[in-house]
Amino acid sequence: MARERQLTPRPAARLSRRSILGGAAATGVALTGVTAGPAAAATTAREADVAVVGGGLAGLTAARDLVAAGRSVVVLEARDRVGGRVVNLKLPNGGVTEGGGEFIGPTQDRIKALADSLGVTTFTTYNTGKNLLYKDGKRTPYATDGLLGSVPPVDLAGLANAAVVQAELDDMAKQVPVAAPWTAAKAVEWDKQTFESWLNAKAVVPSAKFLIDVACTSVFSAQPRELSLLFVLFYIAAAGNESSPGTLERLTETANGAQESRFVGGSQQVPVKLAATLGDRVVLGAPVRSITLSGGRYLVAADGTTVTARRVVVALPPPLAARIAYDPLLPADRDQLCQRLPMGSIGKAIAVYDTPFWRADGLNGQVVSDTGTVRSTFDNSPPDASYGALMGFIEADEMRASDSATVDEVKAAVLKDYAVYFGDKAKSPTSFVLQRWDNEGYSRGGPVAYAPPGVLTEYGPALRRPVGGIHWAGTETSTYWNGYMDGAVRSGERVAKEVLAAL
Amino acid sequence: MARERQLTPRPAARLSRRSILGGAAATGVALTGVTAGPAAAATTAREADVAVVGGGLAGLTAARDLVAAGRSVVVLEARDRVGGRVVNLKLPNGGVTEGGGEFIGPTQDRIKALADSLGVTTFTTYNTGKNLLYKDGKRTPYATDGLLGSVPPVDLAGLANAAVVQAELDDMAKQVPVAAPWTAAKAVEWDKQTFESWLNAKAVVPSAKFLIDVACTSVFSAQPRELSLLFVLFYIAAAGNESSPGTLERLTETANGAQESRFVGGSQQVPVKLAATLGDRVVLGAPVRSITLSGGRYLVAADGTTVTARRVVVALPPPLAARIAYDPLLPADRDQLCQRLPMGSIGKAIAVYDTPFWRADGLNGQVVSDTGTVRSTFDNSPPDASYGALMGFIEADEMRASDSATVDEVKAAVLKDYAVYFGDKAKSPTSFVLQRWDNEGYSRGGPVAYAPPGVLTEYGPALRRPVGGIHWAGTETSTYWNGYMDGAVRSGERVAKEVLAAL
Repeated sequence: MARERQLTPRPAARLSRRSILGGAAATGVALTGVTAGPAAAATTAREADVAVVGGGLAGLTAARDLVAAGRSVVVLEARDRVGGRVVNLKLPNGGVTEGGGEFIGPTQDRIKALADSLGVTTFTTYNTGKNLLYKDGKRTPYATDGLLGSVPPVDLAGLANAAVVQAELDDMAKQVPVAAPWTAAKAVEWDKQTFESWLNAKAVVPSAKFLIDVACTSVFSAQPRELSLLFVLFYIAAAGNESSPGTLERLTETANGAQESRFVGGSQQVPVKLAATLGDRVVLGAPVRSITLSGGRYLVAADGTTVTARRVVVALPPPLAARIAYDPLLPADRDQLCQRLPMGSIGKAIAVYDTPFWRADGLNGQVVSDTGTVRSTFDNSPPDASYGALMGFIEADEMRASDSATVDEVKAAVLKDYAVYFGDKAKSPTSFVLQRWDNEGYSRGGPVAYAPPGVLTEYGPALRRPVGGIHWAGTETSTYWNGYMDGAVRSGERVAKEVLAAL
Repeated sequence: MARERQLTPRPAARLSRRSILGGAAATGVALTGVTAGPAAAATTAREADVAVVGGGLAGLTAARDLVAAGRSVVVLEARDRVGGRVVNLKLPNGGVTEGGGEFIGPTQDRIKALADSLGVTTFTTYNTGKNLLYKDGKRTPYATDGLLGSVPPVDLAGLANAAVVQAELDDMAKQVPVAAPWTAAKAVEWDKQTFESWLNAKAVVPSAKFLIDVACTSVFSAQPRELSLLFVLFYIAAAGNESSPGTLERLTETANGAQESRFVGGSQQVPVKLAATLGDRVVLGAPVRSITLSGGRYLVAADGTTVTARRVVVALPPPLAARIAYDPLLPADRDQLCQRLPMGSIGKAIAVYDTPFWRADGLNGQVVSDTGTVRSTFDNSPPDASYGALMGFIEADEMRASDSATVDEVKAAVLKDYAVYFGDKAKSPTSFVLQRWDNEGYSRGGPVAYAPPGVLTEYGPALRRPVGGIHWAGTETSTYWNGYMDGAVRSGERVAKEVLAAL
């Protein structure tokens, strides 16, 4: 798999269309002797007002706003492409699918505005026909235009219980200020327990527990036992904007929810076009190794490129941000925060077919299942349906069980699942693409870093507080749509304002 | 404070007595231009059968056993001293105190054997006279030779409740196999909740909750809400050896417990003397930045030194081990494990006096308190009592609140606490030493990395499983006395066997 290769350190490459879609092999520098190594490569020295570490949506948005304000910027991106957790994957049939973030929905205003400004348009996620519930070995298609919307038709007791749990979560979430969840009146009470502990007391009907568990793994790519209840409530509260508070339903729904629409040409069109406006301010293949303050300036040292800057924006997931060597050291609260926000475990498996054949069976391609490697699917076919694509999420326990499997093993398991859901035709795709974020050296999981119990209340204030001239961005720092592309863009806009005020 | 300075990258120094006690200032290399940086220093290339990353007790023990088996070894230590979380601090009066691990107790056989072999002797921790309980603003000296031992004399209902909780914890711990806690029959049940959630249901009398909370922060330097119940049970089970299963009491007690004895000359005598037997195999000031597999050999690149080796032992705390750049990448489970095992938050404050004046008041210097920056103290005076030293732990919430304070601010807060406990004489020490492990770049917390809920059951098997020719050591990998010096030594002995079997 092209996306599964090791990204070894390589000399810095200037932004080029060739490298953006990830099709070119990164050959890497073979290290054959003790004197070789990243430091042996030629180093380009640059100067700028601001060095941005990370060329995902957060870093690129920050750079855009800083440049618009007349500041000089260099963006250092470790990979040979921009976009971070947003990546287009080229298919053998000439089409494009998405290995990472792909959906956009209501109240995600900032990614929408950015895409609009770049001429990237959206289309509605295919959502015509029935959903599928696969549970206890039984396959149940169900319409989503009824009273329950897309809630899978489990037993009535379970539906009633789940509705109460969902309402209670939404109510509690309303009490969590998105800018400072740790200041909620019940913050400590909610942060001292796992989401699982709370659920065990509330979701007493097994099928209700199933529904909430599925929502949890779909949203966080982590099991309820790994998450702080307070973090879950914050994340729900963040699924909105200043005029429309978040709800659990908006996180999980397709129509009127976070999975409502997709980008024409693939979501990576947004960072790719954004990076193009920045030209050679964006340096690819430049993983940052150290950030050193010296004489009032920061020396940001990446493989192949160093940037001397007055301010630094670090737009990486927290666990990766801590892997840079800082001098002076980060304050303890910032470092220990980064030790305590692990990435979820996520992958996507896309099977491509000549046609979206499930549509003829009256199915919209969306599954909720209690078994299998893939337990949640979407119809990822292009807007013109010129071919069919089934996209399945591999999440949490299932991803961890598949991280070290061969691609063929994962493919076999996934196609078996797809056949159970959609029939034997699913067994014979024309191509199969697997993206495992846990195995990506510059992500090491996804979609987002989550907080176990005790972290937000102990370390929350360190999330966005600048350290000297170092500022923090990335979707994990966003108040709204934390964990989503929209949150990444919001964080970039916020950090640019922060830096401009300080420069 | 000498221990508070930034350890900047510096050229490799050979092991020397001068640098071991940390008295010499590490001047660091000033990075003034874009071409400067660690890579600009001259690099020494070495070859060995095994490269050991980390010169703490684990790494040094592994090196000793490998050398004894006729293998060539180079130990790369980031600091300008050996010992890791074990360090002697020189006092202005010529004495020595300890900034890190200092105690040794029953069943800690391996650190005992190591110390014996090096001629480092022990003495009994001062434990004569009464303990002090400070609770609800009331100071209560109490004898420890009664039925309750050193359990603070809270109300009877609390004592009874705490005794039941403690017995239940010990019983549950007996069901946890120390080599694989994740295989316990109730592993998932216990790993899905915080220790706090369990305690809330069990320690219903407030004073019982207080007693267990104090035990928790003293042992883990983390609050009960941060810890997985399964991890707590494992840690209790690990407080023993093959012939004597662990108990909570053995973790918390002085007499017959983990705080029973100390080392003459300070605990760092052990790694210092051990390192001396290894001579110039130990390279100081050499933080490892990358481990690269090339042509069947590992290139371990540190500032100033590179080692080419057939096998690598990484003897660092998991969160720091993940900050090295591995090529090929670590498998996902190993990387995500390292994202999920944060360090506790700990410091030690030592006030030195002309005499151990509290002894004359019939006190043994040991306090348990419900308030203050320091809530747990020990008499750290030397065996001959030629001067007095009060050592206080600063832990969890209290440490985090003090990490960014000035040394003078912490000193003022600590001396205020000491005066409350031991009277006004405590306000006027002849010297004051503060060691904050959270602020140490090559520890970033302590005493040990702990597991939040869901980690051991999901990632436990990755704790010790080698990755190709890379093997894992450090106290966090130990079955017995995990988190202690003894566990570090055990891990070094285990990993050496592992490597020898593979070489």
